Amino acid sequence: MPSSDQRAVVESVLDSLVESYAGPLEINNLESAALPNKRAVIEAFNHLVPIIYMGFYSRRGLNAENLRASIGEHLVPAYNALVEQTGRAVTYDERNPRPSASRPSTFSQEVVARLLRKLPELRRTLNADVLAAYEGDPAANSIEEIVFSYPAVRAITAHRIAHVLYAEGVPMIPRIISEYAHSETGIDIHAGARIGESFFIDHGTGVVIGETTVIGRNVKLYQGVTLGALSAPRSRESSGEFQRHPTLEDDVVVYAGATILGGETVIGRGSVIGGNVWITKSVPPNSKVFGRPKD
Amino acid sequence: MPSSDQRAVVESVLDSLVESYAGPLEINNLESAALPNKRAVIEAFNHLVPIIYMGFYSRRGLNAENLRASIGEHLVPAYNALVEQTGRAVTYDERNPRPSASRPSTFSQEVVARLLRKLPELRRTLNADVLAAYEGDPAANSIEEIVFSYPAVRAITAHRIAHVLYAEGVPMIPRIISEYAHSETGIDIHAGARIGESFFIDHGTGVVIGETTVIGRNVKLYQGVTLGALSAPRSRESSGEFQRHPTLEDDVVVYAGATILGGETVIGRGSVIGGNVWITKSVPPNSKVFGRPKD
Amino acid sequence: MPSSDQRAVVESVLDSLVESYAGPLEINNLESAALPNKRAVIEAFNHLVPIIYMGFYSRRGLNAENLRASIGEHLVPAYNALVEQTGRAVTYDERNPRPSASRPSTFSQEVVARLLRKLPELRRTLNADVLAAYEGDPAANSIEEIVFSYPAVRAITAHRIAHVLYAEGVPMIPRIISEYAHSETGIDIHAGARIGESFFIDHGTGVVIGETTVIGRNVKLYQGVTLGALSAPRSRESSGEFQRHPTLEDDVVVYAGATILGGETVIGRGSVIGGNVWITKSVPPNSKVFGRPKD
Repeated sequence: MPSSDQRAVVESVLDSLVESYAGPLEINNLESAALPNKRAVIEAFNHLVPIIYMGFYSRRGLNAENLRASIGEHLVPAYNALVEQTGRAVTYDERNPRPSASRPSTFSQEVVARLLRKLPELRRTLNADVLAAYEGDPAANSIEEIVFSYPAVRAITAHRIAHVLYAEGVPMIPRIISEYAHSETGIDIHAGARIGESFFIDHGTGVVIGETTVIGRNVKLYQGVTLGALSAPRSRESSGEFQRHPTLEDDVVVYAGATILGGETVIGRGSVIGGNVWITKSVPPNSKVFGRPKD
Repeated sequence: MPSSDQRAVVESVLDSLVESYAGPLEINNLESAALPNKRAVIEAFNHLVPIIYMGFYSRRGLNAENLRASIGEHLVPAYNALVEQTGRAVTYDERNPRPSASRPSTFSQEVVARLLRKLPELRRTLNADVLAAYEGDPAANSIEEIVFSYPAVRAITAHRIAHVLYAEGVPMIPRIISEYAHSETGIDIHAGARIGESFFIDHGTGVVIGETTVIGRNVKLYQGVTLGALSAPRSRESSGEFQRHPTLEDDVVVYAGATILGGETVIGRGSVIGGNVWITKSVPPNSKVFGRPKD
Repeated sequence: MPSSDQRAVVESVLDSLVESYAGPLEINNLESAALPNKRAVIEAFNHLVPIIYMGFYSRRGLNAENLRASIGEHLVPAYNALVEQTGRAVTYDERNPRPSASRPSTFSQEVVARLLRKLPELRRTLNADVLAAYEGDPAANSIEEIVFSYPAVRAITAHRIAHVLYAEGVPMIPRIISEYAHSETGIDIHAGARIGESFFIDHGTGVVIGETTVIGRNVKLYQGVTLGALSAPRSRESSGEFQRHPTLEDDVVVYAGATILGGETVIGRGSVIGGNVWITKSVPPNSKVFGRPKD
């Protein structure tokens, strides 16, 4: 039980904290009722994952009869949470002078419906990603091990969902999903990146893929690869309007720790970029860039 | 239900485990009642975060009337947990021949009170860090997105709290907070590092900032940057007594994967250190260090 | 309450999702009742940790009388969960044409018993790892701080447990444990790696240690070190049959960001490998490899 001294401390600190919210700090914003709830967004994402990989997450035996009910147990809460949180994000954003300000209030229902309708297609794309992991990692023993354990699967699943919401112009929610996956996996893929089929990242910790990156089909990255911008003066641009990050064409492999920078940099189809290589200019198709220049 | 065979296995393993605690291993320490509880420390930290960014964490509408109560709901449990856990850490530490051994038993109440009284000031500092993220990242869409999602905000918030406790000489607690943030963000900032205002780390995974690092105002780091020691024979030193890690003056930018080592290394004000550069000597103000030497 | 429009959306999405499970995708597997449950495996691991470091995890005062009961509270659920999940993994795996197919159904009980009987020995090994952290990090203040907070301790504890199960040929479970530790620490150690006593990883984020790596006694790594394979065409090999990853002999130190690749690469006893160095050939004992070649 706190002493009266202790209570006095708490009261006095409370006074000074309340007072600190009176100033003009940006973090003094109190409009929380309108903001999306981060935890609810993450819960919604965590309902979408078993919908995609149902057989790997259900604790009961699944069959044709109970499959629909099992999916529904996740789909209904995912739908409700996404509609509410997207609604909050859009409504909140409408106060700011941004493109979404003109959107109708039914936007959140429509955008969530479009996301969910894309889930069967996303399942096919993610299946190709899982197979790419199986083919690309000699230490992989089974599809099951990959779906259960591989951080790349976690990260690309989050990305493909977040990217749909990003492309729809939903504020805040895509980034919450992406950073949740980043926290879990060490793989930082901005929701804006456009990534083709059969994508695999081995190990993954430290990978950074910038907002305007474009990645073709059947691309494989290792840990610590950066696909980044050359420099980033904020005033020159608003996000997403021109390409600041590189393009990797189909069938490119980038080994651990390589850094590829710049929106005009294109890594030609079938190229192999060696570990720790630093690239700021385009390379033609089927290039092999190994070692350090002049070493 | 386990068979009698299975029960015999468990009993026999229990016997051998109990026996294994009889030896002289350091991890055989059983004085747990006196040790801080890691989970309780993390809970206390997770109460301090909404106090700082109340409007972004509250699920109810906030206004002048209910703000104080909303903060209090977090401040009271944070205070109680911190006093108890700091008390445990200090009491436990008093058994060891270390400086804190001479501290009075009211130390924990006093130090926690001092930490909490600093929260309004910490809020102003962290507001500047949030603004630095907004200014420094062209992909940032809003203050809200940054407070919700950016690992840098999570890491620097934890650091500024842990650093106060570190500077007060509290054992164990600062490291528990720092490593919790490290686990969440991939950003490893030792609680001893002294970091100026308007600090931003973009992406962040793999950043390491050593105990005696000194960082000025308006510094920006990218992922994978190490601010480290040149070498570290334990016997030469006890921690914190001389500077083993570098100094970055105001307005320095360090790009991804750069390594800056040594307590005598000073990166002069306004310098830009390129990606993957390796530095063990001081550079004058406004230097631009790009590419690999002699490449 | 959802409108009838909204209900129609959910129903229609459910239809298309169920339909999407009818095709030949690998992730359409519905045999979930037989699969291990990832969460249960992680819970079992989280019961083994306090068994090993009991004095650091118990909230009550421990003594000779209650130690056995305190260990038992974790050992019984760990045993039950491991037997069940290992049983699922082996049974599931028996459907595939793999070596474990010939194993008797009592395999899971036997293998778990063998793991648990090794715990006293693992405790001695892990004590040496904790001491190596204390000796190797000048910022370490106490054994307690290390056991509580250091990601290396978390990662090596998970590894030494996972490696026993890997060596027993248990499918899926070792990888689930390893990737859980990877997610928590940013340290990615494949369960197959053979690691000697007194092993320490400082900071740790981004470390990758491949499946067939062999590490001697008293080895120390820093963050971002890769012990990897030179290249990995899946068709050439099945995992674990020949050495694809390097060997580090006793008393080797590898600084941050160094990359050592290849199954024929041996780093001789007592060598020091500098930060960011790239090595694909053996080096003799007591080598010092610093800086970039030809720089």
